[in-house]
Amino acid sequence: MLRTITAQEIAQMEDFFRRTFVNSLTGFKSVCLVGTQDKEGKTNLAIFSQIIHIGANPPLIGILVRPEKSPRHTLSNIEATRCFTLNHIREEFYQQAHQTSARYPKEISEFDACGFTPVYSSLLPHAPYVQESNIRIGLEFAERINIQLNDTILIIGKIIEVIFPKECLWHDGYLDIEQAGTITSSALDSYHTTKRLARLQYAKPNLPVRELNRL
Amino acid sequence: MLRTITAQEIAQMEDFFRRTFVNSLTGFKSVCLVGTQDKEGKTNLAIFSQIIHIGANPPLIGILVRPEKSPRHTLSNIEATRCFTLNHIREEFYQQAHQTSARYPKEISEFDACGFTPVYSSLLPHAPYVQESNIRIGLEFAERINIQLNDTILIIGKIIEVIFPKECLWHDGYLDIEQAGTITSSALDSYHTTKRLARLQYAKPNLPVRELNRL
Repeated sequence: MLRTITAQEIAQMEDFFRRTFVNSLTGFKSVCLVGTQDKEGKTNLAIFSQIIHIGANPPLIGILVRPEKSPRHTLSNIEATRCFTLNHIREEFYQQAHQTSARYPKEISEFDACGFTPVYSSLLPHAPYVQESNIRIGLEFAERINIQLNDTILIIGKIIEVIFPKECLWHDGYLDIEQAGTITSSALDSYHTTKRLARLQYAKPNLPVRELNRL
Repeated sequence: MLRTITAQEIAQMEDFFRRTFVNSLTGFKSVCLVGTQDKEGKTNLAIFSQIIHIGANPPLIGILVRPEKSPRHTLSNIEATRCFTLNHIREEFYQQAHQTSARYPKEISEFDACGFTPVYSSLLPHAPYVQESNIRIGLEFAERINIQLNDTILIIGKIIEVIFPKECLWHDGYLDIEQAGTITSSALDSYHTTKRLARLQYAKPNLPVRELNRL
């Protein structure tokens, strides 16, 4: 039985109900831990699920940051150091990853509070990676886009390096994030493992859909 | 065994390899069929996996469109009619959904070519929904943001209505998209079902992580 909810009903929802409902609508989401630090080297770790592939050449990824009404440690750190890391989340530590969304004071690093280990790469000395994470992406700040409609901020980073389990890379460039243990999220607080149906070959008119297998 | 790939190596990759590799990195993605039509009512249906929640109040969703080097029917239709639909994808028709990515000429509607049924709502008369889809979102065009870094275009829509199976809505606004059969994707051509680990309660410092169950 299908139900319809209109924009008017959404406008009248209680704030938390609306936030949960609308956040459900975009489907399953990329979810990562974003690692940053301030100019003094104090680390910060925050879970983000508004992450978007912007382009492959140059390799760009965007993250959407909430309005600057309350302190946004991630944003101010990125603006201070011009870099950040994205770290995929595995089932083994998704609860700790969720815990990074608690409002810790600036003096407390979520690495310590939630039980993660910061590690550094020589290519990206001013942003910590999460050692527990299997797939880690280092980015340098590329552009800030202010979205006037609701004062959110799209931060676009250019990929500097990618660290991943070598056995997860297929012959054609596909990185098997499911094999690496990456999970997905829905809405604001639901976490899910995945099971591949198939990879499908490049679609062409008048050709049937065919599966693509690992060589 | 971890492997590191640097920006320099990414720049030297063969085009298709790089496209597949970089598209893998953002994790599991929202994937939807975007329904549009031109001013004459000719329908178009295209699979998109660059979809991002922009905000809940007002309810906004963004989709990223590739550069306008080749004809982009979805973009020109949205600019002509100022509206579009997002339709979640289920296991039952993910292969047909993938097939909409083939380059059909403008005269052929992917609804016909790939076996989908357009349906209309009185609130959104100028964009077709996909009848086979369980969760359907109708949006009106709100803003176009040109991303200078790579000439992609972020189209932001304001939600006009949401159609979903009524039994999937929890007491707190969470829409159980897994129960509705929504699938996720990775990279450009891999499709995955999901299995919930848990929903987790709103995180607070000094409180242990707790699961959130349906009332």
